[in-house]
Amino acid sequence: MTNELLNSRYGTQDQPANLIWNDHTRQLLGHRSVRAYLPDPLPDGALETMVAAAQSASSSSNLHHWSVIAVTDPAVKRELTRLSSSDYFGSSMPFVQEAPAILLWVADNSRNHAVATALGVEPVSLDYLDALVMATADTAIAAQNAVVAAEAMGLGVCYLGAMRNRARELADLVRLPPYSFVVFGLAVGRPDPARSADIRPRPAQSVVLHHDRYDATRGDGWLGEYETATRRFRAESGMRERSWAESVVVGTGRPYLDGRENLRRMVEKQGYRLG
Amino acid sequence: MTNELLNSRYGTQDQPANLIWNDHTRQLLGHRSVRAYLPDPLPDGALETMVAAAQSASSSSNLHHWSVIAVTDPAVKRELTRLSSSDYFGSSMPFVQEAPAILLWVADNSRNHAVATALGVEPVSLDYLDALVMATADTAIAAQNAVVAAEAMGLGVCYLGAMRNRARELADLVRLPPYSFVVFGLAVGRPDPARSADIRPRPAQSVVLHHDRYDATRGDGWLGEYETATRRFRAESGMRERSWAESVVVGTGRPYLDGRENLRRMVEKQGYRLG
Repeated sequence: MTNELLNSRYGTQDQPANLIWNDHTRQLLGHRSVRAYLPDPLPDGALETMVAAAQSASSSSNLHHWSVIAVTDPAVKRELTRLSSSDYFGSSMPFVQEAPAILLWVADNSRNHAVATALGVEPVSLDYLDALVMATADTAIAAQNAVVAAEAMGLGVCYLGAMRNRARELADLVRLPPYSFVVFGLAVGRPDPARSADIRPRPAQSVVLHHDRYDATRGDGWLGEYETATRRFRAESGMRERSWAESVVVGTGRPYLDGRENLRRMVEKQGYRLG
Repeated sequence: MTNELLNSRYGTQDQPANLIWNDHTRQLLGHRSVRAYLPDPLPDGALETMVAAAQSASSSSNLHHWSVIAVTDPAVKRELTRLSSSDYFGSSMPFVQEAPAILLWVADNSRNHAVATALGVEPVSLDYLDALVMATADTAIAAQNAVVAAEAMGLGVCYLGAMRNRARELADLVRLPPYSFVVFGLAVGRPDPARSADIRPRPAQSVVLHHDRYDATRGDGWLGEYETATRRFRAESGMRERSWAESVVVGTGRPYLDGRENLRRMVEKQGYRLG
């Protein structure tokens, strides 16, 4: 099984030969995003376990700069489907409605803004970009712990960066206070085994791992090998042929923006100064 | 043991009664940051396992927007100690030198900038704040998977947000390419059992968990109860008395900045436009 995991993850690229396997690392390497859910509600205690795991993650200076909104109301999910759809592609994600819960992960400096100002102190860090980076990172660290907990309970997840497509409208919908914004959504539910997804390949470790200093020549020539792995994955998953480089062009170009060019205006209106 | 974990995490605040316990959730809830390490190098395969776990995490649009630099060279660690020290407090973190490895987690849009421009396409997303938020979140999600893998191997970690204190100098030291910056560092190593840390309390779940919409009244009066948990933790850990609200004042005010007010200038010089 561990060989299978490595083959799925790296294909014919260089594979690390000395991995340390246990239940935890097997689960982590077996992750795949789930875009097809059974209608079952989350098991009792699943949400609370995910939140406890998220809270147990590291927190910059122990400041707890995040909140999470668990959306299960079908009417609110319908709005989330609309707000996360793509004008550019004219598409939306049906599993946002299908999943029993969508968790909105909120970078949230509002509580500490209140705590500091109640003591008569202006939280000047909110005037600087660093506060946004810190809250974003802390929110993501917390969310990923929730993901690991969810998968350990047999649930599946899918991150939803598209929840930033219409950040202002979303904030209004869920009534976010100042000094907060949604970093991403997370669909959670029981995966539909009849529509299961495969493990996506990643580039060889040499592409992302550097030693002591960044070596821009590291991974030279990696793209061709990764394209081979991508091609095999897409063929085996019944997806249409498309190179990974083509995904990069779409994913870093105009189509990807799809409203996200307004994020800065939104966070500034929320009170972040980005100085 | 699960009761103990809940008592450490929530103290006398409301505790979730229905958590789903297994090896994974026990490990997640048992996390504590480690600031005292044995000198042993990382076990063979530990770094590769952490990187494989990080790569297996979700990636926005499968774009792999991060890299990691594993610093083990004592001379480079010495520089990292200096760059992450606090001018304001005149203090530094001795465990940056002590830990066998410091991983620098790099939000890295440089690879895809190269892939897109090689195809004659300008990655316009880099002109907007969203690209920075996305790369930051993806880097943090990956890093947290590496943390879970490390802890499953009996290693300890500590995130180092202070690696942003002198972001420009750090980028020069480790020779970061354009379109990249260090989001945080991560100390990794074998915890010294003679200097072990306790589990830090978090606010009750009602403070961070909302249903369907953000409810700003949720968690009203939470601060007093959390101060009680904090006071107990600090007394039992032999730390000097200090309220959590006081930490918030320090952590969101001028002292916390300590150079981070220059982050924007640094990322803009790296090519991010933040439009």
